[in-house]
Amino acid sequence: MASAPDPLSRPIMWRGNILCVCLLPASKGDAAAIETELLRDYKFGQQQLIELWGQACALAITKAYPLSALSKKQPTVLVICGPDQNGSIGLVCARHLRIFDYEPTIYHPKRSSHSLHQDFTIQCEKMDIPFLSYLPTEVQLINDAYNLVIDAMLGLEADSSNIKEPYSGILVTLKQIKIPIVSVDVPSGWDADEPSQDGINPEVLISLMAPKKCALNFSGKHFLAGRFLPYDIQKKYELNLPDYAGTDCLLEL
Amino acid sequence: MASAPDPLSRPIMWRGNILCVCLLPASKGDAAAIETELLRDYKFGQQQLIELWGQACALAITKAYPLSALSKKQPTVLVICGPDQNGSIGLVCARHLRIFDYEPTIYHPKRSSHSLHQDFTIQCEKMDIPFLSYLPTEVQLINDAYNLVIDAMLGLEADSSNIKEPYSGILVTLKQIKIPIVSVDVPSGWDADEPSQDGINPEVLISLMAPKKCALNFSGKHFLAGRFLPYDIQKKYELNLPDYAGTDCLLEL
Repeated sequence: MASAPDPLSRPIMWRGNILCVCLLPASKGDAAAIETELLRDYKFGQQQLIELWGQACALAITKAYPLSALSKKQPTVLVICGPDQNGSIGLVCARHLRIFDYEPTIYHPKRSSHSLHQDFTIQCEKMDIPFLSYLPTEVQLINDAYNLVIDAMLGLEADSSNIKEPYSGILVTLKQIKIPIVSVDVPSGWDADEPSQDGINPEVLISLMAPKKCALNFSGKHFLAGRFLPYDIQKKYELNLPDYAGTDCLLEL
Repeated sequence: MASAPDPLSRPIMWRGNILCVCLLPASKGDAAAIETELLRDYKFGQQQLIELWGQACALAITKAYPLSALSKKQPTVLVICGPDQNGSIGLVCARHLRIFDYEPTIYHPKRSSHSLHQDFTIQCEKMDIPFLSYLPTEVQLINDAYNLVIDAMLGLEADSSNIKEPYSGILVTLKQIKIPIVSVDVPSGWDADEPSQDGINPEVLISLMAPKKCALNFSGKHFLAGRFLPYDIQKKYELNLPDYAGTDCLLEL
């Protein structure tokens, strides 16, 4: 019997009498190359991209967890930010969530020395978004205090086989919590190129620009954010992205 | 008989038995001070603000002139960009309009030497948005070729009593065209603090952050864009901004 076609190798295939065009996940290498190209050739700025991504993440959260559907009385959200770009996206996301009347709290254990990332932190501080100085190890405290956790910790570039403190400890906590986790781009601790066997288990994933290989077979709610991606880049990397509706900056896959 | 209350001096007043809270237009000085504060104290970046404003302008245009309601077969839009910040907002707006399936053409007669503004230009060029090398003086050519004109030319800081070429010539053309004009923040040639008597006559105005004094009594479609404005700044400058709905980044006044 012929084995099932590998969707990664066959972007266009027949299923019965329906011609399917499959969304192709981007490899870690391709995703990094796309970003380099956007910055180097298209002259996008990091600040600009991070703002667009963070804003789209906040919008995805309002769709997946509308204010009216939150289980707790206060619309609290814990945003865990890493040291690099994903962390800055988390900071922007927290700021937009605040504008949308959520009550974000940020845990940002290792701050970057880059002024770009520092500026995103100051924007949140000046908008009176509280920052935690440590993450409770008692998991029940987190379950009780927040409606959900945004995982904007480790991104595409993190080496999942060598995660150091404080992130390894945070991952232990995140594996135990009962409230939903929303991961930005690549769930922390996962390798971008491989679905995780024993990592954290996000309920929502927000892929930036294109889903990564690790998102193949992701069974939760899956959003794609980054509508600004130029057509030439989509074509060059054969991303086969579906069409966004109307003026939406995100799309549920 | 008592004269009508001056809405500028009375932000809260009774009209019959209804207590009205009036939106207070910002003076040129206040608008400049707000922007300085955002950049200096809140550590927002110019690139970030221009991206958010340009994106909101594109969304306003999709609301005022949806693709399905355009009079011409092709969804063409002429975006006229000035040398400074308003011009860059126009470039970002054109890029987002392209993403939303409009066909923008840009006229950007004097390019800035700032790398920030140059980068916004390159983003448009790399997305194959055409740039005009000159503006036809034959007005009928513009009326025939485009559905509307976006005026992102002269902003808050322009001295309306001393407009030089090429902008003075462009204004002569804009006063004669028959297709609708959408102005960004302050219609080109108007003084930000005074409604214009004999300037261009936009059908749509998109105020950034807060309406300027010149927008008082503006009778066209009027949008407010810039939901990111921190509450403390709104309060400090007594802007009395109305609430944006849901997750909208703009609001029709």
